[in-house]
Amino acid sequence: MKKVGVAILGLGVVGGGTYEILTKKREFFQRTQKTDVSVECVLELNRERAISLGVPEEKIMTNIAEVVSNPDVSIVIEVIGGVDAAREYVLAALSAGKTVVTSNKELFCKYSHELERVAKLHNAGLYFEASCVGGVPIIRTLLDGLQANEITSMMGIINGTTNFILTKMSEEGMSYKDALAEAQRLGYAEASPAADVEGFDAAYKLSILASLAFHTKVPFSKVFREGITNITQEVIADGKKLGYCLKLLAIGKQTDAGIEVRVHPTFVRKGHPLASVNDSFNAVYITGDSVGEVMLYGRGAGALPTGSAIVSDVIYAATHSENRYSTFKNTEDADGDVKFQSDFTSAYCLRLRVSDKTGVLSKITALFAKNNISFVEVLQSAKEGDTAAITLVTHETRELAVRNTVDKINALGLAQVESVLRVVC
Amino acid sequence: MKKVGVAILGLGVVGGGTYEILTKKREFFQRTQKTDVSVECVLELNRERAISLGVPEEKIMTNIAEVVSNPDVSIVIEVIGGVDAAREYVLAALSAGKTVVTSNKELFCKYSHELERVAKLHNAGLYFEASCVGGVPIIRTLLDGLQANEITSMMGIINGTTNFILTKMSEEGMSYKDALAEAQRLGYAEASPAADVEGFDAAYKLSILASLAFHTKVPFSKVFREGITNITQEVIADGKKLGYCLKLLAIGKQTDAGIEVRVHPTFVRKGHPLASVNDSFNAVYITGDSVGEVMLYGRGAGALPTGSAIVSDVIYAATHSENRYSTFKNTEDADGDVKFQSDFTSAYCLRLRVSDKTGVLSKITALFAKNNISFVEVLQSAKEGDTAAITLVTHETRELAVRNTVDKINALGLAQVESVLRVVC
Repeated sequence: MKKVGVAILGLGVVGGGTYEILTKKREFFQRTQKTDVSVECVLELNRERAISLGVPEEKIMTNIAEVVSNPDVSIVIEVIGGVDAAREYVLAALSAGKTVVTSNKELFCKYSHELERVAKLHNAGLYFEASCVGGVPIIRTLLDGLQANEITSMMGIINGTTNFILTKMSEEGMSYKDALAEAQRLGYAEASPAADVEGFDAAYKLSILASLAFHTKVPFSKVFREGITNITQEVIADGKKLGYCLKLLAIGKQTDAGIEVRVHPTFVRKGHPLASVNDSFNAVYITGDSVGEVMLYGRGAGALPTGSAIVSDVIYAATHSENRYSTFKNTEDADGDVKFQSDFTSAYCLRLRVSDKTGVLSKITALFAKNNISFVEVLQSAKEGDTAAITLVTHETRELAVRNTVDKINALGLAQVESVLRVVC
Repeated sequence: MKKVGVAILGLGVVGGGTYEILTKKREFFQRTQKTDVSVECVLELNRERAISLGVPEEKIMTNIAEVVSNPDVSIVIEVIGGVDAAREYVLAALSAGKTVVTSNKELFCKYSHELERVAKLHNAGLYFEASCVGGVPIIRTLLDGLQANEITSMMGIINGTTNFILTKMSEEGMSYKDALAEAQRLGYAEASPAADVEGFDAAYKLSILASLAFHTKVPFSKVFREGITNITQEVIADGKKLGYCLKLLAIGKQTDAGIEVRVHPTFVRKGHPLASVNDSFNAVYITGDSVGEVMLYGRGAGALPTGSAIVSDVIYAATHSENRYSTFKNTEDADGDVKFQSDFTSAYCLRLRVSDKTGVLSKITALFAKNNISFVEVLQSAKEGDTAAITLVTHETRELAVRNTVDKINALGLAQVESVLRVVC
């Protein structure tokens, strides 16, 4: 039987889940995978935490050098999070020829080129399934399940915190503020929630997934990003009337015009497989030229789901001898010959607050017409004082045409554009 | 660059799709997978068909011996279907040390023990992603994406033909007969549809998937199987009133009482991720002890989706040096120490045609009570002549208790049980 010694760097939520799976199921992996995976040591400064998880005292290390010099450790699991220390530790492990399994999306998104270079140099493996969409094996699927395909589009709900907040707002009528507080109370959102609600977390993941899907480095800097902090009950209610659910989507497309990558709140038509992905669940909907549409759905976070991805990577590393790296040229920036498209095409749903005066609507619609924007549907709400809310759904048009029109409407002084949402039908 | 020569046995629908992908995307695979995959020859008796697909005349073989003796062929793709010739050809290829990629669920279900034994003997690979759920990489996921998990349950819509028929019956009010005729007209169902509508196809796939999920051989003979040929409009209408969609589910569970594997029409609560899987789409919903719930969704059949699975297997075989076989002891029969549970637990929905006489209902409910079966919901339809239809939804109970009660009700002579459907909430 193959024997593999692992070290876990960091025993936070995910590290604790990983330790639990590896120790409780050691016999199961011996039986089903013909592999004996033993936790040789952990790196954790909080000794009490480690002891409370059942780690024997002699296996608790406080110094990365002790870990990477341990000859019994062949795989190092990095679940510290953050970038600086994690990067230093991962580089130390790879430089010592240890295979690294990481859940760190920010680290991998920003430094994959460096990590991969060092990994190759020292013939070490580098696995990062847990960095995206928790327990859902989306990276394994892109690398080893859909290779036959040129992927033209991927759309994902890949941040559980924001999906939980939007579900609460939609199903229970909560305000954004109350839904965020509820998410924080349940441990789904952090005290400083910006990484989630401003879309950074989803953008890191999209950068990683799009690089794999499109076989070329898609840097974080290319991802258009808009969070959910301005979403109101009115907007969600408009969407319901029009047959839409509001989701924070991460969208990657490859078209003749180039690659587009964007994270923004999006109206999704009810009936679309992504529309019924609720609470903290995640899903990625992929279109490939051979396979057609494929969707993977599951838990995008949590100790055991993320631990599942980490331990599956450990077993994969232990049972495959090639260290396969990215299927793209891993560089810090995008390759020079790759085009990115920021003026993307979409349908839009705009909410306008309009002065209730004769002729205003015709002035506004004239501005849309000038930019070749036409409508699928118009919804007028009841008047409030001397204004009315008008919600417009456009045919497919271009992002810049919409932004340009919005600027002109706001400049008119007769109407205020309260929200601009992209629509997926 | 790695060079891999392949042969395709059979240029039917799937073989044609596979040939198309391999030839059109040769440069794409060179670029993205660093692998040059060339089709060295095909085995096809219908010369015109092969030529119409663009196969050069000199590559069209009519004899398996020519194929397996070709030193330029290292991977043989079997897409003939059927069992006898396919088995002979696959064994010939494996015996010659060629890696085999097959889409043949019946062959793999019935003879995996033999194929795997010969493959190991000759150090050849054996890949079968395309045998289950078309382009959806469910087998890769079970083998390489969810290894950390003990899988406790899998529920799948894994036959596109029956899902198409049931969707047509449900959404357009078609009769079973008309929906089947429509499926045949569109090429989704064969002239002799028994393999699909009687559940054989789903049972073959369930046998394969359950063996992988539960790490022990689950033979076809252990799969309880019931088709959709008796499903009526009335039953589907009852379900709608109760908030259920009717699906042909393949269910595998591992409980303390043993493994249960069954294929039968099932009412699925609306809102369950499987309930919105319509038309010819497939999905598999898996519960693992670490990952929680995961669902994979996509096209379960068709030339290009199935070709996607085959070509992805070819690339996997070309880029991985280990030939990993099943994660279970591959035997013809189940291992002696594995228990199977046929008296499974479920909720049920029963439709009874009852004589409209005083006291009949109390006699019937007494029979249920005697078997400890209690109800969640009772639905009485309008009288027709001197009978009424009553639909009962039970709490979780045991299969044999329900069958026993049904026999007793029918023996009473005062009521006829028109349908018995299991319910997933």
